[in-house]
Amino acid sequence: MRVLGVDPGLTRCGIGVVESIGSTLHLVDLGVIRTPKESEIDQRLLALEAELSSWIERAKPDVIAIERVFSQLNVRTAMATGQAAGVAILLAAKSGLPIALHTPSEVKAAVTGSGRADKAQVASMVKRILKLKDIPRPVDTTDALALAICHHWRGAGEARVKAAVKKERARKR
Amino acid sequence: MRVLGVDPGLTRCGIGVVESIGSTLHLVDLGVIRTPKESEIDQRLLALEAELSSWIERAKPDVIAIERVFSQLNVRTAMATGQAAGVAILLAAKSGLPIALHTPSEVKAAVTGSGRADKAQVASMVKRILKLKDIPRPVDTTDALALAICHHWRGAGEARVKAAVKKERARKR
Repeated sequence: MRVLGVDPGLTRCGIGVVESIGSTLHLVDLGVIRTPKESEIDQRLLALEAELSSWIERAKPDVIAIERVFSQLNVRTAMATGQAAGVAILLAAKSGLPIALHTPSEVKAAVTGSGRADKAQVASMVKRILKLKDIPRPVDTTDALALAICHHWRGAGEARVKAAVKKERARKR
Repeated sequence: MRVLGVDPGLTRCGIGVVESIGSTLHLVDLGVIRTPKESEIDQRLLALEAELSSWIERAKPDVIAIERVFSQLNVRTAMATGQAAGVAILLAAKSGLPIALHTPSEVKAAVTGSGRADKAQVASMVKRILKLKDIPRPVDTTDALALAICHHWRGAGEARVKAAVKKERARKR
C-alpha cells in the first residue's frame, strides 16, 4: 500500500509518500509545495491544487492521509490551513482516492508513543522508521511523512482489530 | 454588475445573488446549499462544489464575494468553514471569476453602519435595501445577501475613489 501524506498549508504544504512492502515501510518521495505569500488567495489555491494533482499523478498513492487540525490557536492560520486542506480533500475525492484524516497528536503518538512529542522527536523517529541516513529535509516534510507512517500503522491496527472481531464472532457461532 | 455572495459552511452554505441596475440593487436569487452531517468530509466537499458550480452556471455572476472568517472561536467550525471557503475560492478561480473577501464586520458596517450589528439588524437592512416584502428566508441567506450588497457598495466606493484620483491626476497635468 502506498500512502501520500499531506501536511496542509498555503505557504508550505508538506508531502511525504511512504509505501509498505511486507511489514516494512519505505520512503518513496517527499517534497514541499510552496505558494507565494504575495499572490492572491485564489491564485495560491489554484497553484496548490495543480501541484498536488501532479504529485498524485506521479506518486500513484492508494490513499491520501491529511492532517486534521483542531488546535491551532491562531484562527487566521487555521483558516488558511482549512482552505488548503479543503483543496486537498476535494482533489482526492475527484481523483477517486480514499482519504483519511489524522490529528497531530494521533500522528505523534503513532510514531513516538507520545501524543505530545516535539518536532525533533518526531523527525528522529521518522528517520529511524524509514531507515534513512539523515533526518528528512526540508523539515516541512517530516510531519507529512509521519502522517503517512501513522496511516500505515493505524490502518494495519484497525485491520487487525476487525480481523480479531470477525474471528471472535466466527468462534461464537 | 452581478455579485454572487457565498457565506461558506459545510452544513449550511448561504448563497445570495444581487445585481445593480443603475444605482439600485436587486435580488436575483438566493438559496442554501446543505451537505449531510453524517457524510464523509470528502463527499461533502464534492457535493458543495457541484452545487456551487451549478449556482455559478445559473446565476452567471461577474464576481464572487466570499465571507472571510477570522474570529470564530470554535476552531473545529473554523476548519470546516475554511475548507468550504477553499472550495468556493478554487472553483471561482477555475471559472475565471474574480473573488473578493469581506470580513463579517465589514459586511455589517456596510449594510447597517455598525460593524457590531446583530443578525436581526442585518436581516432588516437587507430587506430594506433590496426592497423585499419580508426578511429573506431561509435566514442563512441573509449573510450571503449582505455580503453581495457590501461588495457592490465597497466596489462602487473603490471605483469612485479611483475615478477621483484619476481626475485629480488629469487635472494636474
